[in-house]
Amino acid sequence: MRISELSTRTGVAIPTIKYYLREGLLHSGEQVAATRAEYDDSHLRRLRLIRALLEVGRLPVAAIKKIIEAVEDESLPVHNLLGTAQYALGPVVEPEPGAEWQAARAQVDRLIEERGWSVAAEAPARNELTQTLVRLRQLGLSTDLTPYAAAAQRLVSEVEMDTIPFDGPRETAVEAMVLGTVLFGRAFDTLRRLAHESESAHRLLLRPPPS
Amino acid sequence: MRISELSTRTGVAIPTIKYYLREGLLHSGEQVAATRAEYDDSHLRRLRLIRALLEVGRLPVAAIKKIIEAVEDESLPVHNLLGTAQYALGPVVEPEPGAEWQAARAQVDRLIEERGWSVAAEAPARNELTQTLVRLRQLGLSTDLTPYAAAAQRLVSEVEMDTIPFDGPRETAVEAMVLGTVLFGRAFDTLRRLAHESESAHRLLLRPPPS
Repeated sequence: MRISELSTRTGVAIPTIKYYLREGLLHSGEQVAATRAEYDDSHLRRLRLIRALLEVGRLPVAAIKKIIEAVEDESLPVHNLLGTAQYALGPVVEPEPGAEWQAARAQVDRLIEERGWSVAAEAPARNELTQTLVRLRQLGLSTDLTPYAAAAQRLVSEVEMDTIPFDGPRETAVEAMVLGTVLFGRAFDTLRRLAHESESAHRLLLRPPPS
Repeated sequence: MRISELSTRTGVAIPTIKYYLREGLLHSGEQVAATRAEYDDSHLRRLRLIRALLEVGRLPVAAIKKIIEAVEDESLPVHNLLGTAQYALGPVVEPEPGAEWQAARAQVDRLIEERGWSVAAEAPARNELTQTLVRLRQLGLSTDLTPYAAAAQRLVSEVEMDTIPFDGPRETAVEAMVLGTVLFGRAFDTLRRLAHESESAHRLLLRPPPS
């Protein structure tokens, strides 16, 4: 198909598609004439991936680029590929100096070990979680993350992983993983806010009058 | 305390504190001399709130301002206050034209009704969830959000709400709710990515050889 059809079918404006082509987020079409390139289903899929990561995942273009480079690097084994894609999803959090950070980081490492999770020592999510714990502690909020870890493990192992086609082409597996992480993550966050609104309505507006 | 001590105790630079004062995110100190203002614990708390919302919640300054205005508007009943704060936490998502959006929005409304949640018809999270559903469908991913809704409800009603001091001062309740939403949301998202890494390691690296 031509770039105009690609634009109509994905809802992405032509100048934006050209920008993705220049930035290397989208692979080139097949040049069929001096001024015309032909695009196919792989371009449709890729544009939908980019749009979901941008709009729903609110990822910066640099992070999306890292994910796409990992998808395209055929020499990367699937597990490393998933790792790279996964690592690009979170922000980079630098450790802070001091004992407070060290204690929180030790708590994160202990939590991962207690759950029996296989997570690389250099996984950036360890520092990200450490930062959250430090802030929770500074603000006097609970730092018990056990119920959250249990809920995350249940959702990932019982629901999400079964939707990833590990035996198909590598690109399909990593796309499913990245999109699932971003979209279901956003869905869960929104559902939690809806549940908050409902619970606070019940507790504040609908509770029985004091006897 | 002076502004220099406020800066040392919160780790927020003096020019940044002055910026928050100008923007109305932080209330003024007590003017004790022409060039000197005195700050107290309420400023410490407020700065920690702003910092957590910015760094961990990654909220834009405009959203933080809305939350703080709601906290300071004494005429707002606590439930409305929680609603306003809650509504400022999510992005504003505009409905898209077309049947696809309408079908997804109907699915969102049905989900909320089936769970028995009390959520205002105008809650922005309804559109936010609709957008995620539309993207899931366009990308051929599962649109069954039931396990996520169940997990969200469990965490909110069994864990999070119990940490909110509804009977104390209104500022304390809304701070606890906003911070809990943001910080535990971030913690859960990070834990989910850790669980993903672990599950994919188990399925791809540690699985038994084919027989």
